[in-house]
Amino acid sequence: MSRFFSGKYRDLVPYVPGEQPKDLKYIKLNTNESPFPPSPRALELAAQAAKRLQLYSDPTCKVLTDKASEVFGVPADQILFTNGSDEALNFAFMAFCDQSRPAVFPDITYGFYSIFADLNGVPYTQIPLKEDFTIDVSDYIGVNATIFIANPNAPSGLNLSLDQIEVILKGNPDNVVVIDEAYVDFGGESAIALIPKYENLLVIQTFSKSRSMAGARLGFCAGGKALIGDLNAIKFSTNPYNVNAMTMAAGLGALEDEEYFRDNCRKILQNRAWTTEKLRELGFTVADSTTNFVLAKHDKLVGKQLYLDLKARGILVRHFDTPRLTDYVRVTIGSKEEMESFIAAVKNILEESV
Amino acid sequence: MSRFFSGKYRDLVPYVPGEQPKDLKYIKLNTNESPFPPSPRALELAAQAAKRLQLYSDPTCKVLTDKASEVFGVPADQILFTNGSDEALNFAFMAFCDQSRPAVFPDITYGFYSIFADLNGVPYTQIPLKEDFTIDVSDYIGVNATIFIANPNAPSGLNLSLDQIEVILKGNPDNVVVIDEAYVDFGGESAIALIPKYENLLVIQTFSKSRSMAGARLGFCAGGKALIGDLNAIKFSTNPYNVNAMTMAAGLGALEDEEYFRDNCRKILQNRAWTTEKLRELGFTVADSTTNFVLAKHDKLVGKQLYLDLKARGILVRHFDTPRLTDYVRVTIGSKEEMESFIAAVKNILEESV
Repeated sequence: MSRFFSGKYRDLVPYVPGEQPKDLKYIKLNTNESPFPPSPRALELAAQAAKRLQLYSDPTCKVLTDKASEVFGVPADQILFTNGSDEALNFAFMAFCDQSRPAVFPDITYGFYSIFADLNGVPYTQIPLKEDFTIDVSDYIGVNATIFIANPNAPSGLNLSLDQIEVILKGNPDNVVVIDEAYVDFGGESAIALIPKYENLLVIQTFSKSRSMAGARLGFCAGGKALIGDLNAIKFSTNPYNVNAMTMAAGLGALEDEEYFRDNCRKILQNRAWTTEKLRELGFTVADSTTNFVLAKHDKLVGKQLYLDLKARGILVRHFDTPRLTDYVRVTIGSKEEMESFIAAVKNILEESV
Repeated sequence: MSRFFSGKYRDLVPYVPGEQPKDLKYIKLNTNESPFPPSPRALELAAQAAKRLQLYSDPTCKVLTDKASEVFGVPADQILFTNGSDEALNFAFMAFCDQSRPAVFPDITYGFYSIFADLNGVPYTQIPLKEDFTIDVSDYIGVNATIFIANPNAPSGLNLSLDQIEVILKGNPDNVVVIDEAYVDFGGESAIALIPKYENLLVIQTFSKSRSMAGARLGFCAGGKALIGDLNAIKFSTNPYNVNAMTMAAGLGALEDEEYFRDNCRKILQNRAWTTEKLRELGFTVADSTTNFVLAKHDKLVGKQLYLDLKARGILVRHFDTPRLTDYVRVTIGSKEEMESFIAAVKNILEESV
């Protein structure tokens, strides 16, 4: 730390991303990426855009936003694209939280929420999930704070129904409720359908998972026109050209190729069902996931050791070294071949542990 | 504005980017873009990276940073890449300014500095440029604030020598001095050479102008290891994957193709010399620019009207509607053909105004 660093940020504990090995020798089931490349249409449009890269990207993301408006059924002026959904989340913490308007979110959820709160000097409360890692919506009524809910949640893989989301929205009419839908395409229900009914709802999605574009950095938020207006004021005061031209074009291509997207989601669901079944046969406890990962634990295996034993066998999964999660590993659902390798490695580890 | 918007940001006056026409009918000399496409090597590497877009980009930008380390002669842990240089600037305002450490910069400079200050709740002072739009370095001695200097400056196109920069650095040992070198490749001297001598120096550059990558969003900052450490703490608490994989790869390609870069810079310098000469022949006042634009005024023409008359002829330039700049237009240096069209249009306007 330099002696010039502002006191505001000296206690920051930055986010630690999942391992990103530089070589290709690992089967990567640790950061919830898609095993499938982006749509050929996304690649085609990105390559076209690259040829005019000397020109600034469109700060209004007009073409992409218009297409998203059509796909998601939300007016274009109620959508804002961002440099990954992390940027949308940070903008929401900036715009809708401050010293006098704290944040609340579950104790077990996306690890970045508490970091965004700290970054922006926002007080926050973490509400414990129930023993089974589900959210008790009654915990969120009248909390007098901006609410952040990942739905489906990570790393639990569990989701709230739209009815439950509505209970939270109705119980907090004077606070923004942010629904972070990074994993919604794998079995959740999108709260985008509720936008016309609730001016306090902001929905955030990403192209990183179901649309195979983690490396492109593209997310968006949708909500009431006034909320999106506020976020645009932040964006145009931070980084007007926040989304680059290649990513914008790739995003358009991804939205145009709805069939490829649906097909990939279907494959993930099949591989998830297969993996869940195999893990249970091997004695694991695995909740029914609505995401592209499963959270699993085994009475005879220590979470961290399982992570290490898998890594030694060339397979990366994620272990969170926190009290409530320490018994578990989170396993991204990859291709069928990858999941077969994973199950074979787990079998081998179980055999050796006897 | 929504009733949920934080009081911190209600008075924000967001940045207004230069016009980005959606059609291609304009000769675009208004946002200081390069007239040349990115290096073929940049396109080649971006296309390769796109094929693996389902994986997150490397949050440490290792390969690109190592290459930049080699090209710019700065250790890799003293370089941080960002989503355009605007992000680097915002990070610097966050890290090195606050209520008790204000910012200072010239009254005529990049319009975003005051917006970053407002965004971050940073008090600031704008020091007037001299009558001829040069910076008097003695104005910056002992200001007890974080200093932001665009060098060369925009829209003046004028630059300070490294000796003058050193005067500012020595005169402010307890404050960070940020040198924003967006235009340095067109005739300035980079302060990167001074990094080993001054722990309070942060240099920011962009790939938007001289490397034809405005649409890719790539910038970086270089400085003392401790300063870069602070900025990394901000980055990893804001958006760890801030640079997407295609842009990272394109940046590597751009750095590998040094010859293409030098060649393009040389052409801009030739076209700038030609344009300056022609404008002076037509009675314009044009200072010697060290950037890829010129700032010009004519006794018989009103700045805003000239902008409008050029636009009516299919040529976009930039006019700033502020007291000290209102007589001027800022004209980006494009290709030879574009500058010929520009000069022809100016001649036509002058003839019609007689």
